[in-house]
Amino acid sequence: MSPLRASAGFTESWAHFGFAVADGVATVTLDRPEKLNALTFEAYADLRDLIAELPHRGDAKVLVLRGSGRGFCSGGDVEEIIGALQAMDAAQLLEFTRMTGAVVRALRECPMPVIAAVNGIAAGAGSVLALAADFRLLAPEASFAFLFTKVGLAGADMGSAYLLPRIIGLGRATELLILGDKVDAARAEQLGLGTVVDDLPAAAASLAQRLAEGPALAYSTTKVLLTREQDVDLATAIELEAVSQALLMKSADHAEFYAAWQEGRTPKWTGR
Amino acid sequence: MSPLRASAGFTESWAHFGFAVADGVATVTLDRPEKLNALTFEAYADLRDLIAELPHRGDAKVLVLRGSGRGFCSGGDVEEIIGALQAMDAAQLLEFTRMTGAVVRALRECPMPVIAAVNGIAAGAGSVLALAADFRLLAPEASFAFLFTKVGLAGADMGSAYLLPRIIGLGRATELLILGDKVDAARAEQLGLGTVVDDLPAAAASLAQRLAEGPALAYSTTKVLLTREQDVDLATAIELEAVSQALLMKSADHAEFYAAWQEGRTPKWTGR
Amino acid sequence: MSPLRASAGFTESWAHFGFAVADGVATVTLDRPEKLNALTFEAYADLRDLIAELPHRGDAKVLVLRGSGRGFCSGGDVEEIIGALQAMDAAQLLEFTRMTGAVVRALRECPMPVIAAVNGIAAGAGSVLALAADFRLLAPEASFAFLFTKVGLAGADMGSAYLLPRIIGLGRATELLILGDKVDAARAEQLGLGTVVDDLPAAAASLAQRLAEGPALAYSTTKVLLTREQDVDLATAIELEAVSQALLMKSADHAEFYAAWQEGRTPKWTGR
Repeated sequence: MSPLRASAGFTESWAHFGFAVADGVATVTLDRPEKLNALTFEAYADLRDLIAELPHRGDAKVLVLRGSGRGFCSGGDVEEIIGALQAMDAAQLLEFTRMTGAVVRALRECPMPVIAAVNGIAAGAGSVLALAADFRLLAPEASFAFLFTKVGLAGADMGSAYLLPRIIGLGRATELLILGDKVDAARAEQLGLGTVVDDLPAAAASLAQRLAEGPALAYSTTKVLLTREQDVDLATAIELEAVSQALLMKSADHAEFYAAWQEGRTPKWTGR
Repeated sequence: MSPLRASAGFTESWAHFGFAVADGVATVTLDRPEKLNALTFEAYADLRDLIAELPHRGDAKVLVLRGSGRGFCSGGDVEEIIGALQAMDAAQLLEFTRMTGAVVRALRECPMPVIAAVNGIAAGAGSVLALAADFRLLAPEASFAFLFTKVGLAGADMGSAYLLPRIIGLGRATELLILGDKVDAARAEQLGLGTVVDDLPAAAASLAQRLAEGPALAYSTTKVLLTREQDVDLATAIELEAVSQALLMKSADHAEFYAAWQEGRTPKWTGR
Repeated sequence: MSPLRASAGFTESWAHFGFAVADGVATVTLDRPEKLNALTFEAYADLRDLIAELPHRGDAKVLVLRGSGRGFCSGGDVEEIIGALQAMDAAQLLEFTRMTGAVVRALRECPMPVIAAVNGIAAGAGSVLALAADFRLLAPEASFAFLFTKVGLAGADMGSAYLLPRIIGLGRATELLILGDKVDAARAEQLGLGTVVDDLPAAAASLAQRLAEGPALAYSTTKVLLTREQDVDLATAIELEAVSQALLMKSADHAEFYAAWQEGRTPKWTGR
């Protein structure tokens, strides 16, 4: 646990998705398989709060997002969310859209790698959750659908119009976000949107284990700087990397690398 | 027509290209086929002014750019533009380069999707007009040539050094803009610069119709945010999307989606 | 030589790599083949200072970076650099990381095209030097390894977390920088990270000659604006191009293009 905690305790139970931590790997399982893991208001709120807490728990070095059943996440539930939105006033709507955006911002700023294990359809908000991850591993049956315009909403949702052009380029991103058509796994890989793997559970577990057992501070710093350097100029980016890397050169893991190299053995990473 | 018009009337006749609006689709046809639709000073000025007026007319929801004959647009006319530039002073040259840049800025900021139907060569300024579109549909005979350096000018023209790296990445954009070599349609598709279609007129008409008949406010908002979010940081992008999406949740089209979904029918979009 | 020189003379001898200028082409040859051209503190310092001087010499219009022997550049030497870092205090480490970052910044801001002729492994700092070039020509045996995390350091080093996402997109860049795995030449080409050529020395010489003999001010301006426009918004980029292009329209090379076109001959570029 982080020593920098204030009065608030950790949440003891997450009611709106499955959550587990084992061997440094935190796993969120979206678990409404009969609805392809559609999100509810409460699931968004739980995601927002979990991602804020996660780095302070001290037991997780990597986060895996997965879905149970056939789908990854079909986005906001049509009945429970879109239906309810019809009755909301402007202030309530903005409170909702800010909450969903906050989940994506938290994922991008979370100082640990995030893996989206995309087992099936990732649609609407589900596709943006996958975009906000650092790694997207795709089952052959996986697909993306940024289908917002098909429900009369903007294809720019939860940061999708910021993230997707930076991942696959502005031209392809425009096609996907304006039209909202489905993209299958092979096409997604071709676009640079993810990597298709034959055995998704095994591949996700293997990547998560590698990240949890490796030099976690190095991974964390890389991820944080990748996020930050989307938004700064060249000179600032280089200064940010100079200062961060000088700090990492004082880390236990960097010293351990050098000691192991001198002794001709494999480093034993502590993530510090 | 927009109710927010001041004293100026709409332009009644565009002398320097073909212009028509039908069924919500505005079409600009560059129409000097004997010169592969090379641009003149007047054509640039007309483009600048048309794109400014277009969103206020109220009859168009999408803009198609096309060329007549074998070419799309061969760029600035060597005789009529490059020849005339030789005699200009610094202030006149800057007035010209600002005008050409204003066309691209207007296209990127125009609150409706723009389709470039690239039927043949898109060279120089013609290639940048295509870059400024949201969709690039390519005939198998289409090609791009950012040939500015071949006439002794910078490959950075009308925003090309801003747009191309954001569409195909900085490495490939550097090659294309410094060298100015021709890129055929198949290579352009591979780079993410467009999509090759067998029957360009049919494909462009079909896409334009889809955009004109669909939820136009959702499309418009997506396009505007894609433009804006190239230039803002993650937190600002997410706030911009939160506010925009909350507004769209109050739109007629979003309500219509939900009503249609409840009634098990197809939505009737009004674009509002 | 530039007329804008102050008291300092040019460096007469570069002790830590091979350096030659011929026919407008400057070539830096990293030359410790027994160590796959690993960098030392002195080599970084020489690179930093050479790139600052180079544009003022007046004899070079393009810079080629190459390695002797089997490798391109294996990065910081494990014994001579990583070993020495262990004993440094925070201020010394920061002085070192700022120096390495300054090399990349100088390469990106150097007003002439830079070609990385990647003959073999480009690892760690060597991979970032290649990223900072404008053109990456790859021998079939070339490879990249952003292996920083494998030594316990951040994958964000010398601007890699700024440059790589802008070249190959944020998703693929995240994979490469966090994991640090080797990327072979064919995969690098597929990602847009370079172009594989059969005969690297011939291809690099040919491209360098083309850039040295062509309209050098046009190439230089294109490269400088590509660098700058990664960091500015659309409106600023368009204004920057308008002003730069107006200046280029007053250049000798642009006038020469028009004269040659009128006379039906090939232009004789002077690079001015």
